[in-house]
Amino acid sequence: MHDITRKIAQEGELVLLYGQDRKTFIIRLKSGSRLQSHKGILEHNSIIGTPIGSTILTHLGYRYHLLLPSWDDLLRNIRRSTQIVYPKDIGYILMKLGIRPGCTVIEAGSGSGAICTAFTGMVMPAGHVYSYDIRSDMTNLAERNLTALGLSDYVTFKTRDITHGFDEVGVDALFLDVPAPWHYLMQAHAALRGGGFLGFILPTTNQVSTLLTALENLPFGFTEVEEIMLRSYKVVPARLRPLDRMIAHTGYLIFTRALGTDESEEE
Amino acid sequence: MHDITRKIAQEGELVLLYGQDRKTFIIRLKSGSRLQSHKGILEHNSIIGTPIGSTILTHLGYRYHLLLPSWDDLLRNIRRSTQIVYPKDIGYILMKLGIRPGCTVIEAGSGSGAICTAFTGMVMPAGHVYSYDIRSDMTNLAERNLTALGLSDYVTFKTRDITHGFDEVGVDALFLDVPAPWHYLMQAHAALRGGGFLGFILPTTNQVSTLLTALENLPFGFTEVEEIMLRSYKVVPARLRPLDRMIAHTGYLIFTRALGTDESEEE
Amino acid sequence: MHDITRKIAQEGELVLLYGQDRKTFIIRLKSGSRLQSHKGILEHNSIIGTPIGSTILTHLGYRYHLLLPSWDDLLRNIRRSTQIVYPKDIGYILMKLGIRPGCTVIEAGSGSGAICTAFTGMVMPAGHVYSYDIRSDMTNLAERNLTALGLSDYVTFKTRDITHGFDEVGVDALFLDVPAPWHYLMQAHAALRGGGFLGFILPTTNQVSTLLTALENLPFGFTEVEEIMLRSYKVVPARLRPLDRMIAHTGYLIFTRALGTDESEEE
Amino acid sequence: MHDITRKIAQEGELVLLYGQDRKTFIIRLKSGSRLQSHKGILEHNSIIGTPIGSTILTHLGYRYHLLLPSWDDLLRNIRRSTQIVYPKDIGYILMKLGIRPGCTVIEAGSGSGAICTAFTGMVMPAGHVYSYDIRSDMTNLAERNLTALGLSDYVTFKTRDITHGFDEVGVDALFLDVPAPWHYLMQAHAALRGGGFLGFILPTTNQVSTLLTALENLPFGFTEVEEIMLRSYKVVPARLRPLDRMIAHTGYLIFTRALGTDESEEE
Repeated sequence: MHDITRKIAQEGELVLLYGQDRKTFIIRLKSGSRLQSHKGILEHNSIIGTPIGSTILTHLGYRYHLLLPSWDDLLRNIRRSTQIVYPKDIGYILMKLGIRPGCTVIEAGSGSGAICTAFTGMVMPAGHVYSYDIRSDMTNLAERNLTALGLSDYVTFKTRDITHGFDEVGVDALFLDVPAPWHYLMQAHAALRGGGFLGFILPTTNQVSTLLTALENLPFGFTEVEEIMLRSYKVVPARLRPLDRMIAHTGYLIFTRALGTDESEEE
Repeated sequence: MHDITRKIAQEGELVLLYGQDRKTFIIRLKSGSRLQSHKGILEHNSIIGTPIGSTILTHLGYRYHLLLPSWDDLLRNIRRSTQIVYPKDIGYILMKLGIRPGCTVIEAGSGSGAICTAFTGMVMPAGHVYSYDIRSDMTNLAERNLTALGLSDYVTFKTRDITHGFDEVGVDALFLDVPAPWHYLMQAHAALRGGGFLGFILPTTNQVSTLLTALENLPFGFTEVEEIMLRSYKVVPARLRPLDRMIAHTGYLIFTRALGTDESEEE
Repeated sequence: MHDITRKIAQEGELVLLYGQDRKTFIIRLKSGSRLQSHKGILEHNSIIGTPIGSTILTHLGYRYHLLLPSWDDLLRNIRRSTQIVYPKDIGYILMKLGIRPGCTVIEAGSGSGAICTAFTGMVMPAGHVYSYDIRSDMTNLAERNLTALGLSDYVTFKTRDITHGFDEVGVDALFLDVPAPWHYLMQAHAALRGGGFLGFILPTTNQVSTLLTALENLPFGFTEVEEIMLRSYKVVPARLRPLDRMIAHTGYLIFTRALGTDESEEE
Repeated sequence: MHDITRKIAQEGELVLLYGQDRKTFIIRLKSGSRLQSHKGILEHNSIIGTPIGSTILTHLGYRYHLLLPSWDDLLRNIRRSTQIVYPKDIGYILMKLGIRPGCTVIEAGSGSGAICTAFTGMVMPAGHVYSYDIRSDMTNLAERNLTALGLSDYVTFKTRDITHGFDEVGVDALFLDVPAPWHYLMQAHAALRGGGFLGFILPTTNQVSTLLTALENLPFGFTEVEEIMLRSYKVVPARLRPLDRMIAHTGYLIFTRALGTDESEEE
């Protein structure tokens, strides 16, 4: 039987509004609230009950598409004060770190919360994310972003220098998105479960070399260095071709695994 | 407090064995079972209780690393009779289809179960995947693969021609991995919730053009065509460089969204 | 013995002026001439005799580097009214069409003369290029560009519809840079020497498919379809990394060879 | 008027023989000679006078296509004892170094002669290439390769350590294909004309960083670091798609220009 409520916007639902100018808003629908866009006002009450996939008008007659946010949308719309990690990279990071519902994961730094959003959204409700950053403006921003997405119950932010280690032990995966991750490798090892996954993103080849050198004498193994390139096409069936320009580089992704401390990988 | 059980292999745990010849096995540890590898026998009892990250020996003295499987490992090790979708693509598909714990997702066809494994593993335990294939050998193979990974409770396989549609309605996302997906677009629309995500993977540019043409007059919008390229590096810090060869092509990824049937996207 | 004249700018020499704002001029030095730049006047007399590689000042004190133009510079600085073919593609086209000093080559259309410049500059002085375009504004523009580079003796422009064929026979290579090259394949065959090379650049996959279909029943063989991607790096040794953005697409390159008319390729 | 000799294989002509097994031979036709292939004997006399583009048979009935070699063919067929530079890179190197008929060019090392072949073939007959290698087996191999292609008049090989510099001065371009080019930068500067072009190919990021650091304090400027990727497609018009695999990496290309010794680039 057709659940008709799955076709219309619900109170409490997270929706994506896509304007004619390609500007987007992601809001949680709440009876009585209003969105003040640069093109006029939208009453949440006028959205609740409207079929998702249809268009709605502001009081100035400006049209918005009423849609649902993908991860890609959520991540692109995060309020940011730092360069965020791109969906193309985050999807692959999830694959390589074995992230799944129920996992316990640490990340540092919190940044604007993009990776944290994806990790938290994927491990919830049984799992948990611990997100460290030395700067309180970062943990505050990330926390606001996670709260707006309804994810705050599944993440704990800690404003902390990680030089002296993490509070958690036995975590499934750990992601270090910091400029000099080679300073925190044994701290990560102490926090990881046996065989746990450790990931990194670094913009320069010099950083990758420094990290690989540091990893060589530590109980980690099966290290990989990779990069992901995304190429988009013009959506014109009779003239199919790539777009003229693309992002050429975001960062090198490095993945390794915690080994026993009395073992070393020999290949 | 340190949970020491997180460092050692447990009864019932899924582990990855990585041999000196780079051959890998993924097994679920069960007291009394044994793995007959081409390099000798491994008793599960001798693995249970061993620190993850250490090495173990077969009765012939051949060494295996005891590790945990990432999604990447799980997907690469799936028993397959078809070309499977690669982790680089699956990670991005998860991002674009908004897959998360609790989602209801349809896929067709089941193939060897690679995408099904990732979808099911990510929506469990509250969500569910419905996997359709016209060939029973495919649904059987995929079901065996999902069962071996302990995911069978969260997926339902249906050996069925999808020409007449899907049984489910209001699903969050639908992925069509079939050679001529343009025949099943309105069936997909009927199954999707409002604003629901529809994804495709197609190997040739001609198929992409045919699909885009078919989508043009149907209630879908915000269509994107993309491809993901993965480049791996040699893990030698003093001589960092890409590997000589890479996979140049797996498939074009196409994503679109269900709109209201009385609406059409105007840009 | 050191030829000191090779270090200084000569009367009649083609030089590149590179300004602080990255604007560039390519001029042929002529005693008594002057360059009126947007940053002040440069007298050719003040350049002649100056060491190449040094900097010179306009009458307003604005600095220009005095350099020599590479092909890359020449092609980027061509006065253009059309999208020009990029150096990354032109270099590869030269390789695949066997262009070398002494060759006779046809191209259509002339466009702004970028490919014509490279072809002419590489076949001179013994070889010759015949450049066809149906539009006189194109042949005129291309001719002006080639003349400015001192190449006009080695190229003949023809304002002509190529539907009825080319005037030349036995040419070594032919490049069709037109939107619907499949209309001119046998005309190209008639002009080519036995085994002669035929090349194309096309922006869309649909055009490539149409061309390949047309080639299938004609006396051509060893057809290849390729694309060239260029990725540039930040020139900072301690922070080596690709630039953030790159050109994702210029065109698909197609190469084939004229076979005997009573033969067909069988593989 | 149609020059019929341009359609048939001539005495003294360089031709490409392409076998059913995709094995290729490049030979210079000489009356009375014979090619002993692994599939039977081909008399040159039976080839001379045959239309280029047709097929010929060995005495065992094995079929070869009679074609002309492109640069790509010539470079791929060079007898090699080292990794050779690929046509995709060589074409771009020609563009960036301003190579054209009449140029004087130095290269080191000679290797198997691939770059030397392209340089010599492009600067002849008025220009000249000087090719240095510290190993006589390399200069000998390269010289044999160039001689077989009829290019030996336009190139001079020197078996020499370049630590003490080059014999030539005022050359237009210089290409250093050696593992530690940073040791030879001022030697290159001394040999180059003012504004002359200097190019490099290096496989690792570490080498690129070392080179860029060395260049920083020397009279060079306008340095660029780039890489060229070539992607090939299946030539099937109804199922157009990239080949499954590609070369992911050959080397990083670095280009710079000789400035006056009392000048330095300021940007």
